[in-house]
Amino acid sequence: MNKFNKVVLAYSGGLDTSIIISWLKENYGCEVICVVGNVGQSDELIGLEEKALKTGASKCYIEDLTKEFVEEYIFPTIQANAIYEGKYLLGTSFARPIIGKRMVEIAIAEGADAICHGCTGKGNDQVRFELAIKAFAPDMKIIAPWRIWDLKSRDEEIEYALDRKIPISINYETNYSKDKNLWHLSHEGLDLEDPGVEPKYDKILEMCTTLENAPDKATYITLNFEKGIPVALDGEKMDGVTLIEKLNKIGGKNAIGIVDMVENRLVGMKSRGVYETPGGTILYAAHKNLEEICLDRETAHYKETVALKFADIIYNGQWYTPLREALSAFVKTTQENVTGEVKLKLYKGNLINAGVTSPYTLYSEEYATFGEDQVYDQNDSAGFINLFGLPITVKAKMDAALALKVK
Amino acid sequence: MNKFNKVVLAYSGGLDTSIIISWLKENYGCEVICVVGNVGQSDELIGLEEKALKTGASKCYIEDLTKEFVEEYIFPTIQANAIYEGKYLLGTSFARPIIGKRMVEIAIAEGADAICHGCTGKGNDQVRFELAIKAFAPDMKIIAPWRIWDLKSRDEEIEYALDRKIPISINYETNYSKDKNLWHLSHEGLDLEDPGVEPKYDKILEMCTTLENAPDKATYITLNFEKGIPVALDGEKMDGVTLIEKLNKIGGKNAIGIVDMVENRLVGMKSRGVYETPGGTILYAAHKNLEEICLDRETAHYKETVALKFADIIYNGQWYTPLREALSAFVKTTQENVTGEVKLKLYKGNLINAGVTSPYTLYSEEYATFGEDQVYDQNDSAGFINLFGLPITVKAKMDAALALKVK
Amino acid sequence: MNKFNKVVLAYSGGLDTSIIISWLKENYGCEVICVVGNVGQSDELIGLEEKALKTGASKCYIEDLTKEFVEEYIFPTIQANAIYEGKYLLGTSFARPIIGKRMVEIAIAEGADAICHGCTGKGNDQVRFELAIKAFAPDMKIIAPWRIWDLKSRDEEIEYALDRKIPISINYETNYSKDKNLWHLSHEGLDLEDPGVEPKYDKILEMCTTLENAPDKATYITLNFEKGIPVALDGEKMDGVTLIEKLNKIGGKNAIGIVDMVENRLVGMKSRGVYETPGGTILYAAHKNLEEICLDRETAHYKETVALKFADIIYNGQWYTPLREALSAFVKTTQENVTGEVKLKLYKGNLINAGVTSPYTLYSEEYATFGEDQVYDQNDSAGFINLFGLPITVKAKMDAALALKVK
Amino acid sequence: MNKFNKVVLAYSGGLDTSIIISWLKENYGCEVICVVGNVGQSDELIGLEEKALKTGASKCYIEDLTKEFVEEYIFPTIQANAIYEGKYLLGTSFARPIIGKRMVEIAIAEGADAICHGCTGKGNDQVRFELAIKAFAPDMKIIAPWRIWDLKSRDEEIEYALDRKIPISINYETNYSKDKNLWHLSHEGLDLEDPGVEPKYDKILEMCTTLENAPDKATYITLNFEKGIPVALDGEKMDGVTLIEKLNKIGGKNAIGIVDMVENRLVGMKSRGVYETPGGTILYAAHKNLEEICLDRETAHYKETVALKFADIIYNGQWYTPLREALSAFVKTTQENVTGEVKLKLYKGNLINAGVTSPYTLYSEEYATFGEDQVYDQNDSAGFINLFGLPITVKAKMDAALALKVK
Repeated sequence: MNKFNKVVLAYSGGLDTSIIISWLKENYGCEVICVVGNVGQSDELIGLEEKALKTGASKCYIEDLTKEFVEEYIFPTIQANAIYEGKYLLGTSFARPIIGKRMVEIAIAEGADAICHGCTGKGNDQVRFELAIKAFAPDMKIIAPWRIWDLKSRDEEIEYALDRKIPISINYETNYSKDKNLWHLSHEGLDLEDPGVEPKYDKILEMCTTLENAPDKATYITLNFEKGIPVALDGEKMDGVTLIEKLNKIGGKNAIGIVDMVENRLVGMKSRGVYETPGGTILYAAHKNLEEICLDRETAHYKETVALKFADIIYNGQWYTPLREALSAFVKTTQENVTGEVKLKLYKGNLINAGVTSPYTLYSEEYATFGEDQVYDQNDSAGFINLFGLPITVKAKMDAALALKVK
Repeated sequence: MNKFNKVVLAYSGGLDTSIIISWLKENYGCEVICVVGNVGQSDELIGLEEKALKTGASKCYIEDLTKEFVEEYIFPTIQANAIYEGKYLLGTSFARPIIGKRMVEIAIAEGADAICHGCTGKGNDQVRFELAIKAFAPDMKIIAPWRIWDLKSRDEEIEYALDRKIPISINYETNYSKDKNLWHLSHEGLDLEDPGVEPKYDKILEMCTTLENAPDKATYITLNFEKGIPVALDGEKMDGVTLIEKLNKIGGKNAIGIVDMVENRLVGMKSRGVYETPGGTILYAAHKNLEEICLDRETAHYKETVALKFADIIYNGQWYTPLREALSAFVKTTQENVTGEVKLKLYKGNLINAGVTSPYTLYSEEYATFGEDQVYDQNDSAGFINLFGLPITVKAKMDAALALKVK
Repeated sequence: MNKFNKVVLAYSGGLDTSIIISWLKENYGCEVICVVGNVGQSDELIGLEEKALKTGASKCYIEDLTKEFVEEYIFPTIQANAIYEGKYLLGTSFARPIIGKRMVEIAIAEGADAICHGCTGKGNDQVRFELAIKAFAPDMKIIAPWRIWDLKSRDEEIEYALDRKIPISINYETNYSKDKNLWHLSHEGLDLEDPGVEPKYDKILEMCTTLENAPDKATYITLNFEKGIPVALDGEKMDGVTLIEKLNKIGGKNAIGIVDMVENRLVGMKSRGVYETPGGTILYAAHKNLEEICLDRETAHYKETVALKFADIIYNGQWYTPLREALSAFVKTTQENVTGEVKLKLYKGNLINAGVTSPYTLYSEEYATFGEDQVYDQNDSAGFINLFGLPITVKAKMDAALALKVK
Repeated sequence: MNKFNKVVLAYSGGLDTSIIISWLKENYGCEVICVVGNVGQSDELIGLEEKALKTGASKCYIEDLTKEFVEEYIFPTIQANAIYEGKYLLGTSFARPIIGKRMVEIAIAEGADAICHGCTGKGNDQVRFELAIKAFAPDMKIIAPWRIWDLKSRDEEIEYALDRKIPISINYETNYSKDKNLWHLSHEGLDLEDPGVEPKYDKILEMCTTLENAPDKATYITLNFEKGIPVALDGEKMDGVTLIEKLNKIGGKNAIGIVDMVENRLVGMKSRGVYETPGGTILYAAHKNLEEICLDRETAHYKETVALKFADIIYNGQWYTPLREALSAFVKTTQENVTGEVKLKLYKGNLINAGVTSPYTLYSEEYATFGEDQVYDQNDSAGFINLFGLPITVKAKMDAALALKVK
């Protein structure tokens, strides 16, 4: 095993990273500096610094990354309409890179010789953290205890903690594996590991109410976008963090944004998860509705294929790569005119379009109307169809000529 | 103007095609043969033959295309997961080609010298009809009255009809432009022509109840697929037509599959429509859920891009083209193992995954579990990340070396 | 027919546009203002103004667009590596938009009420011109004589000209349809209309010598790029226009860049053409070689798909569209590090890579070597392969388990 | 270390695999069975069985895979036009899977408990071999000595061999790392490891002569294809193996198919190689020329994107995957009409199209001609352009209206 003097640890205060502090000190004889990237996990942050120090860390940074998280990671992803495998809004995926980057900065400032994370060796997050570290400190040593220690289960972890009197608070009721931030809350493990089983939503959901418990009366909201960025809710301008917090409340109350899926992890296996993304789901829907009137067809269709790639790239932790930057440049350019107002009706899990307007709308009632118009010569269609269909005509004639010859 | 002896007309019994019978006879002195392609428009078909003859047609074919429509057009499109612009399930798009093809067959059998349709010169359907005609009879003359006559509005049509005592039944209450078949019902026009306005669903919906009127108690269903084709509902094997009819009822009752969108027409303008596709929406969701466990990642991801192209091709009326055939060959091959059972909960517009199983599932609890396993060596991840991330490492080192040089 | 007072004509001095001056004046009683967009057609420009006035134009603009053509149209297309249908370097395609745009500017300044071009109704250029006009003057009237007049052939044109004593110089020896500019020279028509026939290169080629006549001794050149833009030849910095002129000479002498292809026109039919693009072919090859060491895999591979779309967009005349702009933003971002030096050997039609270097190279001999290295742990490969291949493993196990059950 | 009784080794008779026989026996005490997959490496096969036995193998299979290699791997890849990173014709990539598959069959028949290969831990071939093994025997143990033994260089290998009196024949003159089969010959290593250096072709080339030494007189050939498969050369029908052998001779003599490139390996680093693929290059060019007249535009363009994916998949060793099968189904369907005759002129590295014909040609002189025709109404273009350009018009009008408002 390598020798390290000072290790920076991505700390959450949960069972895993609590144990890791001790484990690092035991195994490397090193100082451990905890870093908590605040990406909106809210109440999970309370008392973390104290806890870290009590558990043996020499220092604990609590870094408020929420603003940067929203503006530099979440909003560009909304602009891209990036959705992984048709369902997942990438809540954990883009949170890891921003934390990883901040950890590198602290590790360098602190003169640390390694960075440690508590991610399992079976998941995506190890990849996302480590790619971020490689991008900013390619020679930095990385310690991933789950890939090397002997602890094989939660029970062994608890035993390890009790042996060493590590302060842990075990929630015996619900111990799905969870990841929470401003954007979403994910749930994995336990009974969810059988895709044949319906999730027990009343036990699982935290950000959202269940569909059945959502109000019987619809909620209407209005969102304003500027160049693809949401800037106001119900007429009130507000910063991105506040906006998402408010939408999470409204959306959660109306049971918006609950997803259950089996997804393909980058590391090769499938996993099943339940995601709650109430505010995010509203923002995606609103943005899509606005794009429908602001983007021309060619741009909109090509952007659909870019969205697929963008989602893969984010999911795979490749945020800090030339391709992600180039895709973002594409996306940003498409958003030049995505400015306008979207009304939505929220009702028991449904997001219903209640009207969309934009100064840049490319929808023209004059062209679209079934009634009389002054702008469109229906005769143009005949020519259009003849040429658009010319390859079909030519092929049909070739087929017919060949068929004749055969006879 | 050309001279024609016998014209085959795509007939619906509505205002447009009723007038067209007279108009054709007046302008070309020709015999008019009506063809109705039954693609599941149900009650719209009642009395059509009689009406056509009374209106001046010499003959009226009512062609039952429902089985072929479901098996040859709808099912391959479900297998592809093709959705136009993220929302539209292509209900009208794939109905036109099958009708167009049948019309050519009848026109040839009847020795007709032209085919006529009542599509507006501003829409997609004229393209879809005419491409189908060109594919099977590239030299057949096509008459599209809306592109050439002087009638400019519904009112002028009615006047034309009254002048000639053409029997028409005008529904003064709701005259959205509609297209109905087994798969869907579309609504366009009137107040929907303003995208800023919320649709009056209680006035519009026919296949579906409104969200508010859907039952407070969820409905559970089970669907079985074989190679991507739905074959049974709630344990009962049934043919495709029956299956869709049943799902339309169940889905409609639960307000499933209502879409409101502004879409890009092939002919260059945007239009706004409301679609009801209750059964289809259920089938897409179920099929997607099943694919999540039956398709490997690479296939699933590439298939997402193919689905976009497939949707464009169908939307644009290019069903009878070599590319559509090649895409279908791709899709069909991917469905080899898409066999299994999907449970869904239907509740007030929501389709909730209630469990999915397959003999071909690629989901492996052993690999996915957070607990201990015997199959996965977490150490493999370290190597994987190092090589997957090698381009990032190399670039970061190059950047660092360059930065040093600059200093 | 419409009435026009003043018409701006895209003028080349050839047979077609010479006749059109008279035809416009005869048919519309209008003043005709000729515009020649100089995009490097060199000797074709000599005496054009005088000729135009003599032929009846009231004014003739000769607009030097070469610099803008190279910097704003050619270079971004090189950066994209855009090639239409695997062969065509888009020489005519991106020349039309820039001329069309300038014509609109002049038409507006002159208060003209229509723009006229001499493109045939069967080709791509009519589309490219007219889309450019629509982009900058959507209400401008467009006159395309070939689509409306009665002249059906070159012979009828000549007769028309002789009747009216229009000064024309007819080259009876070679009358392929040609388009020349700084970037390329295209040839269509005559015996080339039969794809079964080998082109008579000794009669056709003008920019290039034939392969057989190219020197027996190779020519070596060195090109320098900055951010994907060629900036120096053989160590000498020079502007883009000069660079391409010099490369055309060197390339032409060595028979570089001769292409013979059957291509798909936007208007639906196939056509066969021979293209000479000596300098352009060198630039594409050099740029590609440089990208091989400067772009990471993910970017390079995705950029290959973008190049296909970019080529379509350019070919189809959609230069002034939001999608082209967004694709350009993508491409530009990828070129950030495409800076370096490329050596090429030119020999009888061959372009041989003779070495490429860059301060931003991502090629690392240390990683690549077959010998010993200090940077790469070969053990990482085992983990990489296990996870990269995990979907294959899982599927194989599923197949095996199923096979067992069947027994 | 694991214990093994019987190991199947992918044997070539070269230095690496000669040593490996001893190393396996020493380290595992196992029996070693050599397997040579004959994919056309010709003279490299002579005396291999004897050599293997003399070196300590208990058995040596020489498996003739040439016919299967050509028909099941090479031809489908030609049909796809798959080229990796614009240059590489995948010669090694698709040879590995077929050998890997045969090794599994033999390993199972022999009751072996492991398969061993001599690929370096830095390359693609280890991945390609192992993915093939996993596809057919997911639980088979795999031994990759280069990833685990202490030998770090060629010199250490030679020492190891001399120590143990392993019969080896060392070529001190040229020891580029090479891979040869019916399709190609690749060269890596030594001075090629510096991309700044021009390859010494006179020392490197084996299948091809140098450009300078190619004959001064052109060679003409005729190739016939049926459904995208080459079936005859110069009018003589022949099987695929013979055809490629003959084309290799003709092409090699004319210096066709020499490529020098820096490519991106799957395992994350770039490498530089020189490839000779004389016959293959001819087949690709001929097939492309034929497709130009036999495929419609939409199919041809979409197929270009599929070719990129197909090449990646093959390069990455994912031959035995559902995605490759589905892509092949797509490709095969597109080849239905790719039947015809292609003439090519071969001259000093150049492949010049000398005419192409097909009963299924979609090229129509009547449509394409610049002269008069009876089939195409040029007026159709006006309508086509108006609708194709409608999104541009609408956007330009919106822009203009907005600009007015701002004033």
